[in-house]
Formats: sequence, C-alpha cells, structure tokens
Amino acid sequence: MGKKYVYLFSEGNAKMRDVLGGKGANLAEMTGLGLPVPQGFTISTEACTQYYADECQINDEIQAQIWEYVAKMEEINGKKFGDKENPLLVSVRSGARASMPGMMDTILNLGLNDEVVEVLTKKSGNPRWAWDCYRRFIQMFSDVVMGVGKKHFERLIDELKEEKGIQHDVDLSAEDLKRLATLFKAEYKEKIGKDFPSDPKEQLLEAIKAVFRSWDNPRANVYRRDNDIPYSWGTAVNVMPMVFGNMGERSGTGVAFTRDPATGEKKLMGEFLINAQGEDVVAGIRTPMPISKMAEIMPDVFEQFKKVCTILENHYRDMQDMEFTIEEGKLYMLQTRNGKRTAKAALKIACDLVDEGMRTEKEALLMIDPRNLDTLLHPQFDEKALKSATPIGRGLAASPGAACGKIVFTARDAKEWNERGEKVILVRLETSPEDIEGMKAAQGILTVRGGMTSHAAVVARGMGTCCVCGCSDIIMDEENKKFTIGGKTYHEGDFISIDGSTGYIYEGIIPTVDASIVGEFSRIMSWADKNRRLSVRTNADTVRDATKAYELGAEGIGLCRTEHMFFDKIEAFREMICSDTVEGRKKALDKILPIQQKDFEGLYEAMQGYPVTIRFLDPPLHEFVPTEEKDIKELAESTGKTVEEIKAIIAGLHEFNPMMGHRGCRLVVTYSEIGEMQTRAVIRAAINTKKRHPDWDVVPEIMIPLVGEAKELTFIRKIVVETAEEEIKAAGIDLKYKVGTMIEIPRAALTADEIAKDAEFFSFGTNDLTQMTFGFSRDDATKFLPEYYDRKILENDPFARLDQTGVGKLVKMAVELGKKTRPDIKLGICGEHGGDPSSIEFCHNLGLTYVSCSPFRVPVARLAAAQAAIRESMQ
Amino acid sequence: MGKKYVYLFSEGNAKMRDVLGGKGANLAEMTGLGLPVPQGFTISTEACTQYYADECQINDEIQAQIWEYVAKMEEINGKKFGDKENPLLVSVRSGARASMPGMMDTILNLGLNDEVVEVLTKKSGNPRWAWDCYRRFIQMFSDVVMGVGKKHFERLIDELKEEKGIQHDVDLSAEDLKRLATLFKAEYKEKIGKDFPSDPKEQLLEAIKAVFRSWDNPRANVYRRDNDIPYSWGTAVNVMPMVFGNMGERSGTGVAFTRDPATGEKKLMGEFLINAQGEDVVAGIRTPMPISKMAEIMPDVFEQFKKVCTILENHYRDMQDMEFTIEEGKLYMLQTRNGKRTAKAALKIACDLVDEGMRTEKEALLMIDPRNLDTLLHPQFDEKALKSATPIGRGLAASPGAACGKIVFTARDAKEWNERGEKVILVRLETSPEDIEGMKAAQGILTVRGGMTSHAAVVARGMGTCCVCGCSDIIMDEENKKFTIGGKTYHEGDFISIDGSTGYIYEGIIPTVDASIVGEFSRIMSWADKNRRLSVRTNADTVRDATKAYELGAEGIGLCRTEHMFFDKIEAFREMICSDTVEGRKKALDKILPIQQKDFEGLYEAMQGYPVTIRFLDPPLHEFVPTEEKDIKELAESTGKTVEEIKAIIAGLHEFNPMMGHRGCRLVVTYSEIGEMQTRAVIRAAINTKKRHPDWDVVPEIMIPLVGEAKELTFIRKIVVETAEEEIKAAGIDLKYKVGTMIEIPRAALTADEIAKDAEFFSFGTNDLTQMTFGFSRDDATKFLPEYYDRKILENDPFARLDQTGVGKLVKMAVELGKKTRPDIKLGICGEHGGDPSSIEFCHNLGLTYVSCSPFRVPVARLAAAQAAIRESMQ
Repeated sequence: MGKKYVYLFSEGNAKMRDVLGGKGANLAEMTGLGLPVPQGFTISTEACTQYYADECQINDEIQAQIWEYVAKMEEINGKKFGDKENPLLVSVRSGARASMPGMMDTILNLGLNDEVVEVLTKKSGNPRWAWDCYRRFIQMFSDVVMGVGKKHFERLIDELKEEKGIQHDVDLSAEDLKRLATLFKAEYKEKIGKDFPSDPKEQLLEAIKAVFRSWDNPRANVYRRDNDIPYSWGTAVNVMPMVFGNMGERSGTGVAFTRDPATGEKKLMGEFLINAQGEDVVAGIRTPMPISKMAEIMPDVFEQFKKVCTILENHYRDMQDMEFTIEEGKLYMLQTRNGKRTAKAALKIACDLVDEGMRTEKEALLMIDPRNLDTLLHPQFDEKALKSATPIGRGLAASPGAACGKIVFTARDAKEWNERGEKVILVRLETSPEDIEGMKAAQGILTVRGGMTSHAAVVARGMGTCCVCGCSDIIMDEENKKFTIGGKTYHEGDFISIDGSTGYIYEGIIPTVDASIVGEFSRIMSWADKNRRLSVRTNADTVRDATKAYELGAEGIGLCRTEHMFFDKIEAFREMICSDTVEGRKKALDKILPIQQKDFEGLYEAMQGYPVTIRFLDPPLHEFVPTEEKDIKELAESTGKTVEEIKAIIAGLHEFNPMMGHRGCRLVVTYSEIGEMQTRAVIRAAINTKKRHPDWDVVPEIMIPLVGEAKELTFIRKIVVETAEEEIKAAGIDLKYKVGTMIEIPRAALTADEIAKDAEFFSFGTNDLTQMTFGFSRDDATKFLPEYYDRKILENDPFARLDQTGVGKLVKMAVELGKKTRPDIKLGICGEHGGDPSSIEFCHNLGLTYVSCSPFRVPVARLAAAQAAIRESMQ
Repeated sequence: MGKKYVYLFSEGNAKMRDVLGGKGANLAEMTGLGLPVPQGFTISTEACTQYYADECQINDEIQAQIWEYVAKMEEINGKKFGDKENPLLVSVRSGARASMPGMMDTILNLGLNDEVVEVLTKKSGNPRWAWDCYRRFIQMFSDVVMGVGKKHFERLIDELKEEKGIQHDVDLSAEDLKRLATLFKAEYKEKIGKDFPSDPKEQLLEAIKAVFRSWDNPRANVYRRDNDIPYSWGTAVNVMPMVFGNMGERSGTGVAFTRDPATGEKKLMGEFLINAQGEDVVAGIRTPMPISKMAEIMPDVFEQFKKVCTILENHYRDMQDMEFTIEEGKLYMLQTRNGKRTAKAALKIACDLVDEGMRTEKEALLMIDPRNLDTLLHPQFDEKALKSATPIGRGLAASPGAACGKIVFTARDAKEWNERGEKVILVRLETSPEDIEGMKAAQGILTVRGGMTSHAAVVARGMGTCCVCGCSDIIMDEENKKFTIGGKTYHEGDFISIDGSTGYIYEGIIPTVDASIVGEFSRIMSWADKNRRLSVRTNADTVRDATKAYELGAEGIGLCRTEHMFFDKIEAFREMICSDTVEGRKKALDKILPIQQKDFEGLYEAMQGYPVTIRFLDPPLHEFVPTEEKDIKELAESTGKTVEEIKAIIAGLHEFNPMMGHRGCRLVVTYSEIGEMQTRAVIRAAINTKKRHPDWDVVPEIMIPLVGEAKELTFIRKIVVETAEEEIKAAGIDLKYKVGTMIEIPRAALTADEIAKDAEFFSFGTNDLTQMTFGFSRDDATKFLPEYYDRKILENDPFARLDQTGVGKLVKMAVELGKKTRPDIKLGICGEHGGDPSSIEFCHNLGLTYVSCSPFRVPVARLAAAQAAIRESMQ
C-alpha cells in the first residue's frame, strides 16, 4: 500500500498540523469535538511536496486517492457532484502549517455548471441565489485558478448595471445574473481559448493544482522569507461541502475572535453580514455589522455560537479566530485558529491566561512572538500636541501606533518614496496582496473600505504598522492622486497623521513620543528575565541610544562603534590621515582624544555600572577623506600641503574591495597611535566615571575588530595594555579593564584557540562573518539575492537570520576552541542577528554569555532568550 | 642548573643544527672528524630567541656562560684576550639553521686595541700586517656592529692615497695604516659620540648583539619570507680564534666547492687569494685566482686540502662549499656546508651521487629544491640567431639561462622599470645586499667586478636569474648611466642580451627558445613520477600553454579559465549584457558558442585524452563593459539603445566589493543561458574530439565556480545535465562528463558534505579561499602586508604559501566532509598554491587526487609531490 495523501476531517486532529496544515488540522479537531463542521477532506502537505517533485503534476496515485475521498464525501453528505437531485458544491481552500496570507485563499461554489444551476434553482426555489452562486463561481475560478483578472468581470457587471440603470449589485435580478453567467463564460473562453470547464471533477483538479501552485507564488515566497517558513513544508488543500450564507435573510456569514485582537480584552469580537458569502466579509467590499448585532437578529444562533467560542477557547487555551456561516438558521463552523493579534493584545492575553489559570508563565511566554514586541515601542502622538489637534476624520482603529508622513496613493509610490528617505502614509480605497511591499514601506496605512478583518487591517497588525481602515468619509480620487474629507482636498505629498489606536486622522505633522515598558509589558519582561540565561546588551554609541536601551532593560553595551566620534572631529582626523610622520599623526589625534573621552564618559554614565564594550575604529580611512573640491582645498591649506598632494593621498587610499581592505585592527597595526589614543580616551573616561561613582563597577571592555590572526591581537593588546597601565598608574586608581576581539573573519573562528590566549572576550560580528563566509558583499548581494530567493537557493536573508549551517558552524567552532583555551571566556554576539529571535535561540544553545542588539530590540531579545531557555528545559 | 646556551665546537655535531645553526653544527662536525678547525664556541639559537624575549638584552645567565666559554677557548688555544704575550683575536659570525645571506656575516680580528696591535707587531715582526688587521677591524666593527657606513672610512683611505700619490691599497705602508687606524677611531668617535671600545670583552658582547640584531633586519626578513624560514628559529653566533691569511706570501684564503655549483661537474672548483683575509674573496673587490693555481703555488697544502674535500664530501654525501685559510703554510677549515647550486647542477649532482652509489634515488630526489627547477625551463638563446650574433664582451658564466632587456644601472630603476612592464638587465660595478629587490626584478644581471662566488653570482644562482659577472672589459660610468665596451657606449634603456651559461654579452635583442626536459632532468622526473601519489595537472586556457604543459608532464588541465573566450568575442558578450530579454541574451550568446567550442577542441587535442577541467565564467559582468565613450557609443548603435541607456546599464553593474559580488556561479543563477551555452560548447567540442580520436578518453569536467551553498550547484547542475544530455543524444555518441565545483568560499568548505551530493569533484580555489578566509582583498592587501611582515604578524604571503593553520583547516574539513558523502570524490587544487612545494606537501598529506599549476611549475610540482610521498614513507 502506498502513502496516504488524503484524510477525511474525521480521520485527523490538531496534532497533525504538519500533514494536514493548520486549517485542516483544526477542522479535524473541531470535528472531533463534535462541532458543526461540513464534512469534507484534506489533501496533505506531502501531496504538495510530491506535486513539486513530479514537476508540477498530480500523480496518478494521489489523483486516485482524491477521487476515492470525493466518493466518501459524497456518501457522507448524501450529495453528488453534478447530481440531478442533490448536487454537491464544495469550497477549496489552501492551508499550510502556518497561516499564510500570501497564498490562494478560497474557491467557493465549485461543482456548478449549466445543469447544476438549474437543479439548484428548482430545488431552492431561489433562482437569483442559484445564478448568483454560479456567476460568482465562474468569476472566482477564472480569477484565482486561471488568472483571468477580476476587472474583466467587474467591467461586464458595470456595463450591465449601466444598461439597466442599476446602482447596486443587490438590485440585479436572477435574469441579470444568468445573463452575467453567460457573459462570464464567453469572457473566459476568449481569454483562455477553451470552454469554461463544466465537469466538477475537472474543476476540482484544477482548483487543487491552483492551491499547490500558489505555494510558489511571489507573494507567498516573500511572506515565507519574512516569517521563516521553509519552502519544503508545502501546503495542504481542504475540500469542504458548501454551506450558503447567501440564501436569504436567515443566512449569513462572519468572522469572530474570542478576545479583542487589537487590545486583548476578553470579549467576543467580530463582524458578520446577512445574506452573504465569506469572501464579502474578508474582501472588505461591504462594511459588515459588529457581531453583537447577531444577538438581536438571530438570538438562538448567537447563543449557540457563543458556546462554540467558549468550547474552542478552552480547548485550545488561546484566543481563537473563527469563520462561520449560517445557512437558513443553521450554524456551521468553517475554520478556527489561534488568532493573530497585536503585540499589545498578545501581552494582555498572555497575562490574562495566566491569571485565569489556563496557562503557566512559561507557556504564556512561549505564546508571544518576540518579533512583534518592538511594535509596542513605536511612537505614540505627544498628548499635549494631540490636544490642540482637531481630527479631520475617523476610521476603524485597525492596528495601533501613531504615524505621520506624506500621502501616497499606490504601493509602488510608497516603496519608491520610502527608498529615497520619505516617510509616507499609504492611502488606498482598499488594499490587496499586491500592495504588500508598499504597505511595508509605509509608516501607516489608511483605507476607505473594509473592516477590522479586512486585508489592510490583518496585514498591518501582522507587520506592526499603524493602520486606520474603513474611513468611508473619504471621497477618493485615486486617478488624480487626491482625496477629499470634510470638504477639504489632500494631494499626494501633503502631510497627514493617523492614530491606529483611536482611528483618528489629522492634518499635518503631530509630534510623537516613544512608548515605554509598563503594565503587562513589564510583567511579561519580568517573567522573561526570570527564565533567561543569556544576558542582553545593546549596540549603542550615543548617550541617547544608551539611555533608551537602559530603560528597555539592556544590561550593558555590547558594541559601541567609535567611527562617528572621528567624524565629529573630522578636520583633525583628516589631518592625521594626511600626515607623513608619527609625530604629526599624534598631534592630530590629540585633538580627538578629549572628545572621545567625553563621549565614553557619557556612555558609562548612561549604563550606570554595566559593562561597556568599545570597539576601536573599524572603517577604512578613505571613508573619512573629503570628496568635494572645496573641502580638499581646505584640507590642503590646514595641512600645508598642495591640493595635488592631498589628491594623491586620497587616490592612494582607494581600494578595490574596501570590505576586505585596510580597516579594523589592520589600521592599528599600521598606525598604532590610533589605538593608543583610543585606549587613553577609554581609560581616562573610566577613571573619571569611577571617581564620580566609586560604587559603580566600571570595567571598560576594549574590543579589537577584524582580527584574523592571533598575532594581530597580541601586537595590539600590548599597545593597549601599556597605554592603559600608564594612565591607571598616573591616576593612582584601581581600575580593571578587559581586552577582547570581534570574531568576524572566518580565520578568526578557525584559529579561535590561538586568539583566545590574548582575548578575554569574543564578540561575534556576524554581519561581517556572514559576508566573508558566503563571499557576499552585503551592498552588492541585494542585486542578486532576489533571484536566489526565486530559485529557492536561499530562503532567508542570511544578514537578517543567522545562517546556522555555514556561519553558525564557524561560530560553534570558535566557541569550542575559545573555551578550550580559556574556559571562562566571555562570549557575545553583536551583529544584527543579536536581535533576531531564531538567531538568539542559536546563541543560547551554543552557551553564549550575551547577545547585543539595537535598543528597541532589547525587549525582543529578552523574551527570545527566555523562550530559548524554556524550550531547552522542555526537551 | 640552567639551560646550556654555549657549546665548544668539540661538544657538538652536525645533527645539532637546530641549536648550533648550520655553521656551528658543521664546525663541530669537522672538529669531530679531526679536521683542522680553530677551536672556538657557538652561542646557541636559543640564546637569540631569549635575547628577543628579553627585549633585546643578553641576560646575565647567558653572559656568564659566554665568559665561561671565552675562558675555555683561551685555555684551549693558549691565548688570551688583550694578553701582552699571546693576545687572542677572534672572528664572530652569524649562523642560522638555514644559510641566510641577508644576515650579518663576519667580524674579523676582534680583540685588537692600541696595546694588542703593538704586541702583535712585536711578535710577528710584521707591523704592516698588524696595523692592517687593526684598521680593518675598526672599519668592520664600525660598519657591521655600529652602523657607521664603510664609505666614511673609504673616503679617509682615498684622501690618504691621494695625499701620498698612491694608487693601490697594497702600497700603503705600516705607518700609513697606523695613521688610518687613528683616523678611523676619530671618525668612530665623531659618528658614535663615544671612544672606540678598547676592551675585547666589550667588543665581543657588542658583536654578539649585532649578530642577534641582524636576525631581524629588513633584508633577513625578506629573505626568510622568500625561503619559508620561520622568524622563531633565531640565529646562532660562532666565535672562533683568528687565523690569518694576510700574513704574507705563504698565507692565503679561499672558498671551494667539491663539484661545480653551476654545472654539477665533479671537480674541485674554487678561488683563492694570496695574502688576504676572507672578506676579500667574497666581497669581489680583488678578482681571485682559480683554486687549481694552488697546486703550483703551495702543492703540499693543496694536497692536504684535496684530502679534506674528499673526506667532507664522503661524510656529508653531498657537494660541499668550504671556506679555508692558510696561515704561513698551515691549512685551517673555517666552514663547510652543502653547497648552493644551480638547478642544472642540482640535477647532475643528484644523478651522479646515485650513480656513484652514495645516495638512493629517493634520497637524491630529496636533495633537489623543487623551487629552483623552473629556472631550467627558462629560455635559452635561439641557436640560429646566436650564430649570426657577435659578442661585444665576455664575463664569467655565473648563473645559467639567457636574457635580454633594457639596460638599467640601479636596483631601484630595475624595480621601477619592471613594475611598469619593462624587461631589464641590471648592470652594476658589483652588487650588494641592498640591491636584492632590483636583482629580483631584472631579467638578468651583469657585473664588472667579482668572481663566481661574488654576491651577484651567489644571489643570482639562488634566484635562478641569469647572471654574467666579473666582466672587467666594461668601463663603467654609473653616474651618467652609461658604460663603454669594445669602444662603443651603451646608455640606459639600450637593449642588451646576456648568456649566463657562456658569459657572453650581446648588443640588442636575441630571440630565445624554451628549454625542454632532457638528460638528467628527464631522469629525475622519471624517478619523481615513480615515487609520487599526487597527479599533476596544469592551469591552461590556450593551446600554447596546454601544449607546453603536456610537454612538461602535465596529466590534464585542472583549471581552464574561460573569461578570455568572452573577451575574444566581446561585442557579442556586451550585447548579451545589455539585452533585456532571455531571447536577446541567447541570440548574443549563440555568436560566442562556436568560438568557445573551437577553443575547447584545441585544448582536448593538446591534452590527448587527459582530463580537461573547464571552469564556467567567473568574473563580474562589469569587467566586460566598455569604459571609453567611443565604445559605449558603438555598443549603443549595435544594440539599438541610447547612449544614456547603455550608461545606465553600466552604472547598474557597478559593485562596491566586486570580489564578493555578482560573479562565479551567481551569474548562471541569474543568467542560466550562459551556463547553457558553455555546456553546449564544452560537450560539442568533446563530441567532435571523440569522433576524431575514438581511442582517447575524452571526459570533460565542468567546474562551477564560487559555489557557497549546495542548492546553487543543484540548480546549475540541472541546467548542465539537461543541456549536455540533449547534445549527446543529438550526436548519438556515448560521452561521459563530470560536473564538479570549486571550493573557494569558506561556506563551501563548511558545507562540503551537502555540496558533494551534486559534485563529482572538488577543486580547491585557494586564491579566493585565502581572500575570504583572511578577509584580505588581494589587490588591497599588498598595501598593508609589508607592515604585517615588519611586525612579524605574518611571515609569509598567504597568497604564495598556503596558510595551513586557517585556510588549510577549511581545506581539510572540506576533504573530510566531501569524502564522507562521496568516498570516491576527485579532489584537486587549482589556486596558485598548486605550484608551491610546501603547499603541495600539504595537499599530499590531505590525500588530494591532484594539484594543478601553471605549465612551467609542472616539473616543480612533480618533484614536490614525490618528495612529499618519500617524506611520508620515511615517517
């Protein structure tokens, strides 16, 4: 017997998510719980994988199983495809292990054809409904399965409405809809070159293939990359008998959450539409009613639905996001899943579930996606400024946070304006999956149509972007890139401000203030701190950043870049670069010394006794020389050289591959006086701070970048130690300091045992380590990486998520070799990966001492570190 | 008891080379053999290492041992430092494990002062000799130990000679020399600010320090780097009682070889000077007599010396290079060592020693330095052209080979002219260690003064550079950069040709022909081939190179770069680069296909059935686009684009770090049509060759460059295999081919187990692997590497000698991982290290299948591979 590729809902359960996908597993689980689910089947994710292995064919074995299960479904439901008495209609829906908005969603009413529609008409006595279903199916199948855009069909509807002098779709008669069905089929034939398929089995097979195909569409690939979902997982396909929310006033369809996905408040939330099919709610075409209205309109169904909600929430011990349909007074559950939520809601729900005794603290911590936390730290409008601002309109508060920016009207503009440094608010009638890139680029999103579960709202919440939607007061003129609200017209480029927490829209710029960690956030963080083993530091080189990071819980600075301190005194540094003698260079550096010392004092103060790791100058010198003729002339004057000489010096600094050139510790090997000056600044600053705060534990950590050979570090360490001892002796104070190195050159990782002899700590510079290990110049790789994603050669940006296979192997090797030489060596990471949860887990598992990340990522790292420790303890 | 730092000659032997240095160990060995060696002592290399560890101080423990051994030496010789009756004079000489011309050589006559010179005068009855020794000592000590240049003293001599109307030094009287001694001491005091040291012990300690210091001088460092000698070895110091070759007509000094170092012929060779000290011979100031003259002048001594030579050669079982002094008819041996020799002589000596039963073939193979072999492959003058050429002069045939180039007169000019692409002949009165860089840069060296053992001759032979020396017919005018010979004047920039095998000098350019492997060379190669396990291939991408390599014994092509084949059809390739469509690109590539196919056919023909490894296009596309306005315009015309569009395309191709940019396999990932075209060319060429030569084993190996992730190779392999199968099917022929990859990205080495799934072979591209592992851009690192050498952070250029610690670790890892997946994987190396003997040994030990190197390095690699195997078998 071959592999089982198809499962009845009654054959599965929630634990089979890998095989059945999330949607299929939960339909099975609900079936097991005895909830009202139309009984269909799920084609497994393995069938999808096999489809790709077979070069995009559904093989005979799988087809045979599908037909076998179609027969079973027909028998269970007492209906048959194309039957003259009881014809079966089905929905076909994708469903991967993780919910993926980028994929094909749903085909409804599959199984209809010219005969079946007549049967339905007769059977229901509702020809308008039957023909509406049929024309919707043709439209949806053509669009989703065959790629004939919706607009072609909408044009036909518009033409008919114009001809008949009708305004709304609902005013179309059964006859009109029948005519539309005919027109649609003709349109299909013209575009596809074949008749619209009338055989339900052919329709089904095509729909299944379309779901499989959608796993590999560009939107899905982008989403997967953003969410660390492997391509190899594949998607399942759910085939379910139709129930109809559009059979009249006793029918309807809706979506609901057991808790508020925006705030986390424990109350049934949701929206529904009477006499509609599911797509109408999600697409945001009609603005739906709040779910509470159901209590008035269909009190019995509402009571039943509330019970179902309670059962599901208690069963999954998490907030549920459900889809349902009411067919002539009967409730059907079409989907349930753990609901997506804002970061704020995630925190509240986690705390509430603990308080309700449903989850332990550890479990609750694991329920929060660390990546979303920083959305909570997004700015809010300054309350004072807000008081004097009058809203120009209000929509739904779809995704919290405050944003202001220039108005743009297309996703493309949003992306382009953002790339040139503009902050923009994307204003759309409604959004669609094509808009994703633009939505990412925008500070905020404002839509005219659609509810809290519309595309714009769902996606914005997922991204942590502020969003106001369904603002129907806006009169949109997309073509001319303007809109009118309250009698005033706003054009592309005008500033507006939107508040995703209140739904208010304001004219102009309203100042924002940063958020802080209070309430549930602080509670969750305290749980995280209890559970984590990794220490969390920050990458900061200004007092402002360091102070912010300290507030957010940073336990030290893991990386203070010092290059900006040279830019702050650029004339002196240029003098140094142009000097031919050690004395000349020292004289120039002496001018920089007090400035750096002051900067370091500020950082020690901000960190209040936590360790501060200072990295010596890293970039190549050519980044500091002037390019403008005027500046070159000035430099010539100040150094007493000719313009030609200065130009020759600049030309001499040119490099073919600056990333692998004369930078990092190589600068101190050549110009030891730079290392001497920086050591003096670091140590003097520490001495002063220690004098002011004798109780603080001021232990500067001097970090040498780009070491690739142990002798480099030995050479520089000697300079540092000699200089530091001289300063400490002169101050007559007892000061400890550490000397360590970045591990960011492959050779450093390979020879870490040697390097550890002179390094009291290692800090993994995974940005450069990734560049060199892959041989990817980060600046240049952006040009070809998209093609790597398209061809599935890479699934993630290795600069965002640590490549554990290759780069990680070097890190692991360096950890082991380093500990062999120096068992108590301090190990940290200061590349951008230090703020990425999956990379943090890797660092935890390797036994690193700390991770260091940007200030706003500190809470993310605290939580991720806790999750890593909890997951480890669960193994 | 502490460590022993000082050894009497009678305490050591030849096996103690590590501790005593080569010179000291051999002096000890000769002492043991009962040969006449003045009995002194050796200060060990460990004392030198300790001197550096003590920050350039000779510590008390070592000083105490030195004085203890001075006392022993005084007792053995019956003479004492500063004694009024029997004063001891000594020579102080450096002596590392390996002979190192860059270091301090000798101080003679140490122990002299104002009193001792009077004692010697009285004792010898030869005041002229005594004062000559004294003034020489002051001069040498000032120069070598204290760094007061010779010229200051030579000026004083010249002034005195002018005053006295004297032409030659020998005409100076005892009184004159006494006056010079006084003048010299005054000169010393003026330059140094202290009196010339009169205490022999102070003199000795300073001389020893000078030897230690000379271990770290720039010339020594350069020499070490060129010859793979570790800095950590240190040098020994030999202190030996003086014997005097300058005591009159029954005294003399000389150097000799037991076989001819130029040809290898078995006959006593050498030069000596009557009434002279050793420095006079080596310095090339007086042109010495051939050693055969000794038979006439001092027949007894000559007989004794010949016996010593036989004893030494039989004892060491190798050609010896000896220094000796005759003091009033008594022979003293001052040094013996295995003589340096030309590559030609090395081969002959190795063969002869085997034939004489003194060495086994394996031992003989180990005696030849593979690095010198390629000097044998240097061009010789075309015999026909030579017949019609008349020599303009003749010197000594000091180092074989033929060269022609433009005349330059300074080492600096030689270097500069060479850097801008000129071939030069360096013409000097005599050379000195300061000239090394210029000598390296020259095609050939011509000197006016000095014999076969002069500096120029020794160094040129070592470097394998053609050299004619001692051409006294030349009237030199260095100042005006011209010389006259045979009445005709030659200026800087004029062409001359010199023949280092005959000593003849010619005007103008004489065409040269390549040498070939015959005679002893061929015999040695056949022994090497019997003993080696590594196969040797060549890096070649033209028929000319491939044919040459085949002649030199290459067993296939390990790396055929294909970029030049794109340059050969650059217009078509530029069209491809500028095309927006796949079709457009294919059309352009179709024009390149037949050209590449033809090129590949040529290579298969040249290799006559040996494997040919073809690497797909590697460099980034921006290397192919035009830079000249004219060419851009042409390209615009031919592609139908505007000049602005072409410029935009070119600008779009710019990269910040091209080394880590869009190149190698990344090109085929983006433009699979390039891979397709190259596959077609490779396979079609193989099919045609196979049709012509059905008996040949034509198996093309397609090599994908710059793979860093297994899926890159999987993706490209699919394209290659599909295209190849299509071509093979169409041809209806049975053709095998292999697909493999370069391992040149660190990540490839780290994930070699995955990569081996789709790679039938690995070829280590150690050039790029070194770049990425070190994070050194080869083009940029040249600017700072000299400082790395100065500071002893690196001792070798990692691009010339494989860094076994770091890069080697990756190679080792890749070998192990690759074999784990595919036990029969073919493993090769095609970086420049493939021709470096120490790297070849490393490859042998790792179990690689082959090394690939430039054609002229093939014999080097064959020998090095054999040596590696022999050394392994000896363990």
